[in-house]
Amino acid sequence: MKILNSVPKEDGFYMPAEFAPHEGCIMIWPERSDSWQNGAYAARRAFAKIAEAISKSEKLTMLVSSKQYETARVMLPPEVRLVECTTDDAWARDVAPTFVINHNGERRGIDWGFNAWGGLVDGLYFPWDNDNHVARKVCDLLDNDTYNLRDFILEGGSIHSDGEGTILTTEACLCSAGRNFDMTKEEITKKLCDCLGAEKVIWLPRGIYNDETNEHVDNVCAFTNAGEVVLAWTDNENDPQYELSKVCLEVLEKETDAKGRPFKVYKLPIPSTPVCMTEEECTGLDLWDGEPTRTVGERLAASYINFYISNDSVIVPAFGDIMDKTAQEVLAERFPERKIVPISARDILIGGGNIHCITQQIPACKNK
Amino acid sequence: MKILNSVPKEDGFYMPAEFAPHEGCIMIWPERSDSWQNGAYAARRAFAKIAEAISKSEKLTMLVSSKQYETARVMLPPEVRLVECTTDDAWARDVAPTFVINHNGERRGIDWGFNAWGGLVDGLYFPWDNDNHVARKVCDLLDNDTYNLRDFILEGGSIHSDGEGTILTTEACLCSAGRNFDMTKEEITKKLCDCLGAEKVIWLPRGIYNDETNEHVDNVCAFTNAGEVVLAWTDNENDPQYELSKVCLEVLEKETDAKGRPFKVYKLPIPSTPVCMTEEECTGLDLWDGEPTRTVGERLAASYINFYISNDSVIVPAFGDIMDKTAQEVLAERFPERKIVPISARDILIGGGNIHCITQQIPACKNK
Repeated sequence: MKILNSVPKEDGFYMPAEFAPHEGCIMIWPERSDSWQNGAYAARRAFAKIAEAISKSEKLTMLVSSKQYETARVMLPPEVRLVECTTDDAWARDVAPTFVINHNGERRGIDWGFNAWGGLVDGLYFPWDNDNHVARKVCDLLDNDTYNLRDFILEGGSIHSDGEGTILTTEACLCSAGRNFDMTKEEITKKLCDCLGAEKVIWLPRGIYNDETNEHVDNVCAFTNAGEVVLAWTDNENDPQYELSKVCLEVLEKETDAKGRPFKVYKLPIPSTPVCMTEEECTGLDLWDGEPTRTVGERLAASYINFYISNDSVIVPAFGDIMDKTAQEVLAERFPERKIVPISARDILIGGGNIHCITQQIPACKNK
Repeated sequence: MKILNSVPKEDGFYMPAEFAPHEGCIMIWPERSDSWQNGAYAARRAFAKIAEAISKSEKLTMLVSSKQYETARVMLPPEVRLVECTTDDAWARDVAPTFVINHNGERRGIDWGFNAWGGLVDGLYFPWDNDNHVARKVCDLLDNDTYNLRDFILEGGSIHSDGEGTILTTEACLCSAGRNFDMTKEEITKKLCDCLGAEKVIWLPRGIYNDETNEHVDNVCAFTNAGEVVLAWTDNENDPQYELSKVCLEVLEKETDAKGRPFKVYKLPIPSTPVCMTEEECTGLDLWDGEPTRTVGERLAASYINFYISNDSVIVPAFGDIMDKTAQEVLAERFPERKIVPISARDILIGGGNIHCITQQIPACKNK
């Protein structure tokens, strides 16, 4: 693996869309007792189900600590490849590399800086040094050269690409004080275009209410095809999500993508009943610096947008809500060639994210 | 990766010779301060040279602790793939899987039991649980199914295969009290044949003088071709190695291999001057349970037999002895199609083994 200090766009590399063909997917086995309740046993079962669903159409590599290797080996199907890797938590979307490819089908990985969603300003844990080394290690594992972009703080969950020059992100996250405080929005726009081989960044103002990532785009809006997005939505004007989704819709309705196309926006409901922490769940979490990591009744950032597009399926969170079915129907229309696979995701959501947050696709390439 | 409880031989799998084509090679980055003097810096430089030499003709995967990942990445050429793995030391030959293939070109790995060369009887460190998990993890990494043979204690350095049904081993090691004390020599013979897909085991009585592995075969005798071996040798009757080599020669001269061929035995000299620990080297090693791990003047088990056969080279230890050149000449005659690459190996030898001990070949196969 070579460590590169050049610019992906100048090298002819770009980030393909998630709906383009994958070689595989990276996940990380959950373990951290202040993120995952009751020793992470329920979370592991949920992760195992997701890994199994993804494995049906692409190679799933699960990163795991040395300590948990044998347990994970028994809980996961033989199709899943288990590889040891020291991490601080289990958010592959945010700590694994963002992969870029070129038109010859070669693949490289981007090693962004990672500071646990805000560093010492409003980050979610400390330290995060193991997480910050994951991207490079994954590139090494795959024998893909890696771009050294550790001086720019970015998590994979804060960007989406249509593979045709358009990047989706949120201002709430990328312009937050805990990330690249010394860069203007214009400078960040140029950085994203340079790194992801893109022409245009669509800046959605906000994300999902109470999303502790500073409102990652991957919880509120996602490409389902070039020129097409799904947007988390509620018609309930009293719901705090209403205003957040509305300002995003306003941007999408007036913007065009890099190819000059207006966006087709499909609304995906949020759960009809807010998903909130129970007392049992709260007392099953280790304290952090002596304080609770979650409080009883706290509303979690539940969103069906946090799905993963595998080669043959869309793996979508289910919350036992009446909107589960509606969300699946909307997605089935948007992805007519894929199966819609709902997986009960409450035990992942408690950790602070969902199915998209714990996965990172490896685009298909020819330089293996 | 599937964990198999069947018998390799019955499944049609056998261990190919080291001189057969390789897909790659596994090594482990040295770190342990009671094995490698002065913080392992000299050992790392030697390991890096060996990795670079092997990389020229096959893919080298270096296993490394999380802590040493960045240092190893800088010290190793980009061609080397670095993968995180927790180990207790750096002996890939003894802790990585022994690979077996079948005639369709499929490959599987054997996960032997490992107890640090003798467990609580005469093992060399405690604990050894991380090492005992390496073989399975490497099979997982390569996506090769693995035979669960953890109930049988064996290190890769204690066996050689000609790929045509013959296994070389030593009685001093395989019949030692710290390994499979409850098995007879006949039972061990059957076990080796079953696991390695072989027909016949050649039992050499002894190995190299003062070899703390209980005299592994890979330090005293090696196949250079089917029906051909090199044997460590000295003509000096006063050298403690003389009797040990002599009893091995007597066995080889009267034995035939699995195909009924008598062995052609080529003598490879040992260094003319014993390689012994200096005071500086000794004081550069951490103590173990309060005791020195090596003593000043201690004779090390230096042997040119401990070479590695890569696809295009034979990487052979050099000790700065007048016999270095003789050994290289003998090997050049035995391997006319390979380059002979001597590498100064004192800093590896101090750890207790040599180039063969720190490498494990991955035979070429078709099930990648």
